[in-house]
Amino acid sequence: MGGNTFGEIFRVTTFGESHGIAMGCVIDGCPSGLEITLNDIQKELDRRKPGKEHGSRDEDDKPEILSGVFENKTLGTPIAIIVRNTNQNSRDYEEIKNIYRPGHADFTWDAKYGFRDYRGGGRSSGRETLCRVAAGAVAKKFLELNNIKIEAKAIINCDIEKIKKEGDSAGGIIECRVTGIPAGLGEPVFDKLDARLASAVLSIGACKGIEFGAGFSAALLKGSENNDYPVESPPSCDSQTSSDSISVKFATNNSGGILGGISNGQEIFFKAAFKPTPSISKPQKAYDKNGSIKEIEIKGRHDFCIVPRVVPVVEAMTALVLADFLLLNRCARV
Amino acid sequence: MGGNTFGEIFRVTTFGESHGIAMGCVIDGCPSGLEITLNDIQKELDRRKPGKEHGSRDEDDKPEILSGVFENKTLGTPIAIIVRNTNQNSRDYEEIKNIYRPGHADFTWDAKYGFRDYRGGGRSSGRETLCRVAAGAVAKKFLELNNIKIEAKAIINCDIEKIKKEGDSAGGIIECRVTGIPAGLGEPVFDKLDARLASAVLSIGACKGIEFGAGFSAALLKGSENNDYPVESPPSCDSQTSSDSISVKFATNNSGGILGGISNGQEIFFKAAFKPTPSISKPQKAYDKNGSIKEIEIKGRHDFCIVPRVVPVVEAMTALVLADFLLLNRCARV
Amino acid sequence: MGGNTFGEIFRVTTFGESHGIAMGCVIDGCPSGLEITLNDIQKELDRRKPGKEHGSRDEDDKPEILSGVFENKTLGTPIAIIVRNTNQNSRDYEEIKNIYRPGHADFTWDAKYGFRDYRGGGRSSGRETLCRVAAGAVAKKFLELNNIKIEAKAIINCDIEKIKKEGDSAGGIIECRVTGIPAGLGEPVFDKLDARLASAVLSIGACKGIEFGAGFSAALLKGSENNDYPVESPPSCDSQTSSDSISVKFATNNSGGILGGISNGQEIFFKAAFKPTPSISKPQKAYDKNGSIKEIEIKGRHDFCIVPRVVPVVEAMTALVLADFLLLNRCARV
Amino acid sequence: MGGNTFGEIFRVTTFGESHGIAMGCVIDGCPSGLEITLNDIQKELDRRKPGKEHGSRDEDDKPEILSGVFENKTLGTPIAIIVRNTNQNSRDYEEIKNIYRPGHADFTWDAKYGFRDYRGGGRSSGRETLCRVAAGAVAKKFLELNNIKIEAKAIINCDIEKIKKEGDSAGGIIECRVTGIPAGLGEPVFDKLDARLASAVLSIGACKGIEFGAGFSAALLKGSENNDYPVESPPSCDSQTSSDSISVKFATNNSGGILGGISNGQEIFFKAAFKPTPSISKPQKAYDKNGSIKEIEIKGRHDFCIVPRVVPVVEAMTALVLADFLLLNRCARV
Repeated sequence: MGGNTFGEIFRVTTFGESHGIAMGCVIDGCPSGLEITLNDIQKELDRRKPGKEHGSRDEDDKPEILSGVFENKTLGTPIAIIVRNTNQNSRDYEEIKNIYRPGHADFTWDAKYGFRDYRGGGRSSGRETLCRVAAGAVAKKFLELNNIKIEAKAIINCDIEKIKKEGDSAGGIIECRVTGIPAGLGEPVFDKLDARLASAVLSIGACKGIEFGAGFSAALLKGSENNDYPVESPPSCDSQTSSDSISVKFATNNSGGILGGISNGQEIFFKAAFKPTPSISKPQKAYDKNGSIKEIEIKGRHDFCIVPRVVPVVEAMTALVLADFLLLNRCARV
Repeated sequence: MGGNTFGEIFRVTTFGESHGIAMGCVIDGCPSGLEITLNDIQKELDRRKPGKEHGSRDEDDKPEILSGVFENKTLGTPIAIIVRNTNQNSRDYEEIKNIYRPGHADFTWDAKYGFRDYRGGGRSSGRETLCRVAAGAVAKKFLELNNIKIEAKAIINCDIEKIKKEGDSAGGIIECRVTGIPAGLGEPVFDKLDARLASAVLSIGACKGIEFGAGFSAALLKGSENNDYPVESPPSCDSQTSSDSISVKFATNNSGGILGGISNGQEIFFKAAFKPTPSISKPQKAYDKNGSIKEIEIKGRHDFCIVPRVVPVVEAMTALVLADFLLLNRCARV
Repeated sequence: MGGNTFGEIFRVTTFGESHGIAMGCVIDGCPSGLEITLNDIQKELDRRKPGKEHGSRDEDDKPEILSGVFENKTLGTPIAIIVRNTNQNSRDYEEIKNIYRPGHADFTWDAKYGFRDYRGGGRSSGRETLCRVAAGAVAKKFLELNNIKIEAKAIINCDIEKIKKEGDSAGGIIECRVTGIPAGLGEPVFDKLDARLASAVLSIGACKGIEFGAGFSAALLKGSENNDYPVESPPSCDSQTSSDSISVKFATNNSGGILGGISNGQEIFFKAAFKPTPSISKPQKAYDKNGSIKEIEIKGRHDFCIVPRVVPVVEAMTALVLADFLLLNRCARV
Repeated sequence: MGGNTFGEIFRVTTFGESHGIAMGCVIDGCPSGLEITLNDIQKELDRRKPGKEHGSRDEDDKPEILSGVFENKTLGTPIAIIVRNTNQNSRDYEEIKNIYRPGHADFTWDAKYGFRDYRGGGRSSGRETLCRVAAGAVAKKFLELNNIKIEAKAIINCDIEKIKKEGDSAGGIIECRVTGIPAGLGEPVFDKLDARLASAVLSIGACKGIEFGAGFSAALLKGSENNDYPVESPPSCDSQTSSDSISVKFATNNSGGILGGISNGQEIFFKAAFKPTPSISKPQKAYDKNGSIKEIEIKGRHDFCIVPRVVPVVEAMTALVLADFLLLNRCARV
């Protein structure tokens, strides 16, 4: 239970340190018969690549599918995907081996495990997210079959060029929308759809908050303002009596498409907040391993704003949650 | 995997519909030798009771411990606690049997399961949270032994008397602080401490968002503003070299006490947003079971602001997460 | 993770000490819409009742369904069932409070938890199995809907009257057969159908072994003797080309209906061995809590052969495994 | 939940088809600080290699550790190990692509997933067990630290040279003994130590049964014969009153070292039965994909007795169970 597995039926385990041999994931529980090619995965990994403007390490990640796919279809067996680490420069990290960088997980990992792979953040590196994106690419293929579509986008409210020149960094917001989702996904009471999405998105390093639908502003609304009310339909659409569950349409979406932890068929909508990259080139005060306070300057290549690169990661985590709940929902009724 | 179990080692399963025979929980994995009395549980349940001012159903909940405790100490076996439902008035709900109340989970449960116990919201009732509070009371006893303390409080920014008179309802914010927490709790990468807390708190009905430390405002800060920097200590405190992990102190707590998903020993701090109670006495438009739109007036007894009653629930969920991670952390090193 | 939960989708948690307030179970993940009455459960509990001839404690167990069933149908929410303990006589056990009875779990529970509820074996009592039977009754209803039938029987090879007069006890074999099972149940590679059945049956106290199909005798056969070969079918039955998976029929069933951990559609067949009841009235040597060796005579009411009463327990555990795999199998293909 | 993960805390996920790119495992939850080298893994893999006398495929398996180990110590992060498949000859299998070989999982996999990787048995190949052995090698290192030792051996009761000449195959028994085990391992009631070991061993392909201690013969003993009685100790050894739990010694070990699902500190002892290899060179009748019966002769390289090669697999599975329970047991008491 080291916490590196996500999901119940569609279940992903990831591994890999930033400057180790390889990163990878194993997807267990993906149904058989899903068409998947290396390109499906490469395409998503490419979306996660740093843009030139972000001044970050050039990661040219080539995935390899080791198992679980035969003649371009999933077998129902575990799908293992690895990406070798090739472009790391571990010497950059020698001098911070004994320093706990501000805003990083250096100290907390030492406190937990007694030591750590200090090179490039080891397992707490942002590079870990490529495994999520690879796994998410498979989940997305399954969602596509079910006509579900996920789209996230980054909102960065600052003058990025200015922050870059200052040797500082920026955070931002990622908005995510899911369309085509059937009503009925989510498991009460602890595995509510929003609870699981929250867990999925907050498990991404640097995420500091999440809100669904009206979110924090709902706390300031009255019930009559926050409740979503039905849109009047023309009479011809009113003949829903024969179907198992009706299809609903509301004038607003303060619920974010989820009521009581279960999707209602509206668009799912949430926002997540990401803090600025803790690695900045300005000098900073930091603890060393002996508890003394030192001044450090962080070298190496760092994104000064990782938010755009997190967009496919948020989509991937959302896809993993939805693929899992789609499958779980097959067991809801006799 | 119906989603009614929470936790890995310290694991709670809850059950019960609002107007059924009883509510209850089973705690499996509570270590043996923990002193626990009925009063420890009653005390927390009483905090969840409606205040006179909230005009809500008078629930006088008496817990019964069915197993797992012998001579006032936990046996290491499952602790089952039940509370019988005594004060329900199911006739209040007859007339909304075929209506999907706005902001409630009526429609989504039907969409998932094909039918539902419509009386008082059934399993999606706020009454379900009493099982969390009962289980949380046991977790709190374990945390107390470890000198960990949880304190939440409600912040409601509206004129409550006015809203009540209008037949409307109000939401609010709950702030939660945990002190005495050791560094090292949380499991990378998917079971980060903040990810699990987010899942725990968002699994409470009506929660629409959560943020840790600087939260959403972190998205607007620069890295140099958001990073927490060490507080200079006097020389005499500097002799930490012999200890396994040093103790740190930062000038700010933008991290909320969690870095890389692991506690750093600072206070844990988060805020959660709760929407206004969807049940209001004003007339509202709603779908019925056939997809037609009807006007309804909701009767029965309802809190027009449940936020104060959610305070012990947030504490309980936080306690469950921390008890679980405290135990898991015993397995972190050889 | 105290080990009191069984199953992945159809998931049962049991609780209760033999001389505590009540025994019970919570079934989470039972699909909605399954018809269930108190009588379905009572009927199975009655099969577990001691016969007059076995000289055992008269347990007249009345189940109560606390949740999860509404208008005689499962809601999809957790089904909690309890049975109060009424007929216990704890004074019988006072004198063995500090003694570790031979063949019992007294010592091992103390070694694990530091203390135990010594009254009637506490949680390690055979009485714990009634919760399995109650949960299994629900699972059986689900299997019935799917035309699956489980039948176990006891085989006791000794002169029972003679053993009873001697103040001694007897063990036996339970054979179990499942018919109507579709091909395809079981999850490779660790959750093979036989692996999970083995775990289910060996989790019953007193079980010392299990074998499938030819079992231990398969170790002595040649491959050509142990392989099951097709039965020639008449030409008219040969037109199976249009179906998704063919239906097979073998001349023998050395496989026990399971190949590679997955059912092949033949009858599932296994045998389990149960040791003689460790409680006998003959004087025995035993350790006490200080490690000294004492002579004891065990009083109280005890079955001198529990095997007949274990028959419905074996069926119940088998039913739990199959209900779980039937549901899991819904997720095998896209 | 595809069933390719084993364990709760010390948790292994395996992947790989026999004729795919690679086999591998990911170990999550291995504590940090455990010394591990490639040689520790190679050594165990070599024990699984076919001997010259068994006439089997020459597998020269070279493991690669991709993550989780830094400077020869475990980091507490997932340990991924892969072995590339190099020596396969898939053409051998072309002609059995549409045939369901007797005693193999060909039909059951098709029935479950709709299609399969037919080359060399795909995921149901015996080759899958190398991942277990690799993971078990890590578990063994952890057990060594705790002075626990596992030793299994094969017992084959037939004239092997004769069977080989006939083009037939043989099964056998594997006996396994664990010494140095502390009292207290195992989790009641469903995760009893014997239940979990049974599940672990029966998840190995070809295993048809398991028994603990006196096993099936216990079903024929009287209680007074089957109970294990204390060995009288000399007076000097009697001063155990100060220790937390006493150490016991019994004249017999009919329990197999486990009572009530918990280890008692005696040697753990079990036997498992393995069927003869289903692949034999004699002509056999078999179903084809259309349900017709055909005669086939199986080509390719096959062990005519895999039992000796299963010895390290049984040890590995036992090690995985014990490592998991050792860690879980850290959470038994406050």
